[in-house]
Amino acid sequence: MTDLLSMLANRADADPGQGLHDFAASLFPICRSITGDGVRQTLARLGERLPLEVVEVPSGTPVLDWTVPSEWNICDAYIRDAAGRKVVDFREHNLHVVNYSIPVRAKLPLTELKKHLFSLPDHPAWIPYRTSYYQESWGFCLTHRQLESLADGEYEVCIDSTLQAGSLTYGECVLPGTSDEEVLVSCHVCHPSLANDNLSGIVVAAALAELLRGTAHRFTYRFLFIPGTIGAITWLARNHDAVGRIRHGLVLTCVGDSGGFHYKKSRRGGAEIDRATAHILHHQSEGAKILDFSPYGYDERQYCSPGYDLPVGCLMRSVWGTFPEYHTSADNLDFLKAEALAESLQVCAGIFDVIENNHTYRNLKPHGEPQLGKRNLYRSVGGTNPKQIMLARLWVLNLSDGTNSLLDIAERSGLPFNEIRHAAESLMNADLLIPTISPERTTL
Amino acid sequence: MTDLLSMLANRADADPGQGLHDFAASLFPICRSITGDGVRQTLARLGERLPLEVVEVPSGTPVLDWTVPSEWNICDAYIRDAAGRKVVDFREHNLHVVNYSIPVRAKLPLTELKKHLFSLPDHPAWIPYRTSYYQESWGFCLTHRQLESLADGEYEVCIDSTLQAGSLTYGECVLPGTSDEEVLVSCHVCHPSLANDNLSGIVVAAALAELLRGTAHRFTYRFLFIPGTIGAITWLARNHDAVGRIRHGLVLTCVGDSGGFHYKKSRRGGAEIDRATAHILHHQSEGAKILDFSPYGYDERQYCSPGYDLPVGCLMRSVWGTFPEYHTSADNLDFLKAEALAESLQVCAGIFDVIENNHTYRNLKPHGEPQLGKRNLYRSVGGTNPKQIMLARLWVLNLSDGTNSLLDIAERSGLPFNEIRHAAESLMNADLLIPTISPERTTL
Amino acid sequence: MTDLLSMLANRADADPGQGLHDFAASLFPICRSITGDGVRQTLARLGERLPLEVVEVPSGTPVLDWTVPSEWNICDAYIRDAAGRKVVDFREHNLHVVNYSIPVRAKLPLTELKKHLFSLPDHPAWIPYRTSYYQESWGFCLTHRQLESLADGEYEVCIDSTLQAGSLTYGECVLPGTSDEEVLVSCHVCHPSLANDNLSGIVVAAALAELLRGTAHRFTYRFLFIPGTIGAITWLARNHDAVGRIRHGLVLTCVGDSGGFHYKKSRRGGAEIDRATAHILHHQSEGAKILDFSPYGYDERQYCSPGYDLPVGCLMRSVWGTFPEYHTSADNLDFLKAEALAESLQVCAGIFDVIENNHTYRNLKPHGEPQLGKRNLYRSVGGTNPKQIMLARLWVLNLSDGTNSLLDIAERSGLPFNEIRHAAESLMNADLLIPTISPERTTL
Repeated sequence: MTDLLSMLANRADADPGQGLHDFAASLFPICRSITGDGVRQTLARLGERLPLEVVEVPSGTPVLDWTVPSEWNICDAYIRDAAGRKVVDFREHNLHVVNYSIPVRAKLPLTELKKHLFSLPDHPAWIPYRTSYYQESWGFCLTHRQLESLADGEYEVCIDSTLQAGSLTYGECVLPGTSDEEVLVSCHVCHPSLANDNLSGIVVAAALAELLRGTAHRFTYRFLFIPGTIGAITWLARNHDAVGRIRHGLVLTCVGDSGGFHYKKSRRGGAEIDRATAHILHHQSEGAKILDFSPYGYDERQYCSPGYDLPVGCLMRSVWGTFPEYHTSADNLDFLKAEALAESLQVCAGIFDVIENNHTYRNLKPHGEPQLGKRNLYRSVGGTNPKQIMLARLWVLNLSDGTNSLLDIAERSGLPFNEIRHAAESLMNADLLIPTISPERTTL
Repeated sequence: MTDLLSMLANRADADPGQGLHDFAASLFPICRSITGDGVRQTLARLGERLPLEVVEVPSGTPVLDWTVPSEWNICDAYIRDAAGRKVVDFREHNLHVVNYSIPVRAKLPLTELKKHLFSLPDHPAWIPYRTSYYQESWGFCLTHRQLESLADGEYEVCIDSTLQAGSLTYGECVLPGTSDEEVLVSCHVCHPSLANDNLSGIVVAAALAELLRGTAHRFTYRFLFIPGTIGAITWLARNHDAVGRIRHGLVLTCVGDSGGFHYKKSRRGGAEIDRATAHILHHQSEGAKILDFSPYGYDERQYCSPGYDLPVGCLMRSVWGTFPEYHTSADNLDFLKAEALAESLQVCAGIFDVIENNHTYRNLKPHGEPQLGKRNLYRSVGGTNPKQIMLARLWVLNLSDGTNSLLDIAERSGLPFNEIRHAAESLMNADLLIPTISPERTTL
Repeated sequence: MTDLLSMLANRADADPGQGLHDFAASLFPICRSITGDGVRQTLARLGERLPLEVVEVPSGTPVLDWTVPSEWNICDAYIRDAAGRKVVDFREHNLHVVNYSIPVRAKLPLTELKKHLFSLPDHPAWIPYRTSYYQESWGFCLTHRQLESLADGEYEVCIDSTLQAGSLTYGECVLPGTSDEEVLVSCHVCHPSLANDNLSGIVVAAALAELLRGTAHRFTYRFLFIPGTIGAITWLARNHDAVGRIRHGLVLTCVGDSGGFHYKKSRRGGAEIDRATAHILHHQSEGAKILDFSPYGYDERQYCSPGYDLPVGCLMRSVWGTFPEYHTSADNLDFLKAEALAESLQVCAGIFDVIENNHTYRNLKPHGEPQLGKRNLYRSVGGTNPKQIMLARLWVLNLSDGTNSLLDIAERSGLPFNEIRHAAESLMNADLLIPTISPERTTL
């Protein structure tokens, strides 16, 4: 009986969120992109914790409507002023270079240079994050204060990067369950030093995988650590069979800031993952908001494209693009909160507890109420809320006619899924309930 | 054409509610329980008014998952203090004894006695109501003031009760209609001197039965006067055929206090009885509330168990358990209001008027509007609200395509069912409408 | 690609509303009724602008449940006081005579005359509008001030009217499209000098027809200029085949006052015309209200009778009967606003743009997002709102699985239909989308 929430509650670590934050901190300095050594280094760290298969797909490989791009790597980049001082230095912050900038070495007057400089006038102390994946160009990002302090004159620019045939790299961690039906957990690993938008999803997904490794589970879990868009497209192009086995899925992103939860539903809108997540957020996290699907966002865009239409939603705390720190140097390790990461892990655990245990039962004494008193199941019950425990039993008995799953019952009764699940267990133990189909025998 | 509301309006009695209250008053002193002579006495009084079949089911009879219990009767009970004074006396109020207390004669010090005493510290002048049906024990209920006035010392307790093989008793009044499809009206008769929770349902159900006896009706009505839970279970166990004929049903309870109406929907949620009751309450009683089904409450729990799933809801004024007088001596004849009982009867009459007359018709001139003017059906109409009368006719003509019942039309138009029904009658008389199926020929 | 809104926007006329108002002004003085020369004169004016077939149906012809009535015409009518002065004169205002008054020449004392006089005490300067179509009688309408100024004494009344065998006249303008599926636009032409209630619908319908004549369109459009009720019934009785081809329809009435829009849904409630109109009003006109169907109102009553159940709604600005000027002389050319007429025409154009272009497409690259960047369809777009343009493309791609029409997509995305339509066009041009069925080949 998978019970991830109890496992989390019973764990020894005094502060589980701190462990997540520490892992994020160790990944923070790496200069990731959609290809290149930054992704490989990140996956290497994940591989120390998880059974991770690292996949390399050569540049030029056709993937669905796209082509795997050239691989980008970077050693150094800077702008020197006329006096030879580095006024912008990639080694100080990897956001200083427009991601995927082609190599350049040149001397330019400030007016020419400025065409390649990006800053945020509204947040003069922050460096913006910019990319140029699919059109060859180069540029530097800097704080607006830096920009304004640049005197007229000639500048030397150097971007010591390579953009050439190589491969796209992604990591895949598969945890087999008793069934070959799959749950997909996907997060992107393509952002350089950005914490909430990138690392929060990675560390929570990794912790979830570690948690699942420690217990029996029904579903096979597949964790994807992939570059955004092109990574998801590459994976989809290469995994036709696995796609057909996906029953539920979550994209994890921006799950580390202190904002309230937001869940963006799958294209289907009423998929079990949508209902399970809404249920858990309703009961576990006050003020959470459920958003309708839209075809813009993270890799749910790909998983929910009409040819796949997978039941994959996107779990966030603050919604990308709505907080000012998004895609700037202010999305840093201070912006990431240990307790927020821990809570996100708990929510995911709650969701997968629902998915794992959402069976449908049949009441074996469906005519009238069975006499719970003689079975010590009526009132004479322990627990912190004996009335709720009894109510949950009555709801499970009443609705278990073979058509209502435990999640259906939890939704209709307004009681938490866990209470309903425990009621079903006690009724099973009293031979009042049987599952309609042995879930272990579920195959495709 | 069944028209219970008109029958009620045209009755001679100046104050119909007073008659209901008087009947309740005559039943109030009887010490009822789930078995025993109190139920028999109550049914005897009902039998003076209604054609009542009284059924005795022997102790030990298996009924669904339950067993008919031993029969309980009581003659006397008291507590005497050291001076020989009765400090608690069953003959003063039958709530003083825990219902189903086993016989006891003993002398006890106050400390021991207190383990068997129950009071309400928050309502120090009220006696609580307690039962001990399914575990053998004994006890006294008393006001908190009584409890606090007990001096230390030895007390003599006497409960002159019997708990032995006998039978469970219930009453059944069947009023045959033109169809053998049935409407079930069920109320519990197992509470001792409690007025709203017990007697209000009994007297309203009895008055409804008397009303129906005085007119032709389509459905066969079955009124059950039964002990709660075990009575419903016993009846269900013994009446498989009748169960299959039930088309609509109401549990009546707590219909005599001055609170607003509450209707708890059947498990099905959208059954005709649910819609009819919601419609009548909406039009007849301001502020009524419709509650979703839950598997806790009165005998709708049994009728709506998944093996039966009968379309049976529960009509209440104040909801049991939510008013302080509930299950105390304050639920007495003062708490019961004549006008509230009369209004409850009216609501039931309105509901059964809907159920009886909710036919589906077909417009015989469905192409364009028939010319109502030449039939004297357009505007040139009497009544207190000629515009509403005409609107009702247009609605009935427009929606009577053989798929909409009169209740469907009432709901969509927002007009009262009675207005819609009268419109259908006038259109029938003008040969503009025919019923889709002769309701008289409806059989199972 | 039908684009009526662009055609309207690109038209030369500086003030399109003024043209509509001028046309209404030219029709205002004509004394129309449900039959007679007033209708013929009105249709003759329409025939100068549109290819109009004028149909005459003889009195006495049975039409559905009705009979075409005798034809009514009027030359003159007045009331003279004892001094021979005309105190009420039809030639001053055609509302002065109760429409369909039988001929009369008589002398009457004031007390007798008053039985035939109608005024509005609450609006003493306005003349009411009254009819007496289906019972033979006569009367005069006058301002309450006129009524009060009448001195006792004898009066001479003259109504120089004829009510005799003739015909009912209506006009029909059919604009063939590539498909023989039809769109019905219906307005009544039976009111005398009333502007909003009558002329507003006529002039907007005529302008719509003129607009449609200037462009290719898919549907065949049928404009009916008919007497209310009996005209619709007559047309329905005679056009069984055309009725079967109607796919969408609008009744236009009261579309010229300065109030906000109201759309009354068809009996079906969720017909495409209902959704298209709600969508356009939501995006084009703030504060518009959508009303549920009811079987009372204009000729949607006939089109939505159960034997036809056509998807025909009713577009209004202020709802008939809810503004004080309704059916009085105050519903005049001042009450009719040029800009309101122009806006009503725009709304109709928007609605028919939706109806014409609401195709269903299939995404030819449904697996993952197609790479829009390489097709210059991602961000690198012009327009006033590039982000909305890109979003519209993503929505169309995501939902175009062959089951969602463009209107479905507009509704779900919350984007205006036009944006969705343009997105579909650009995706078609990029070979990313094909229609599921060539709409040109749609036949019945």
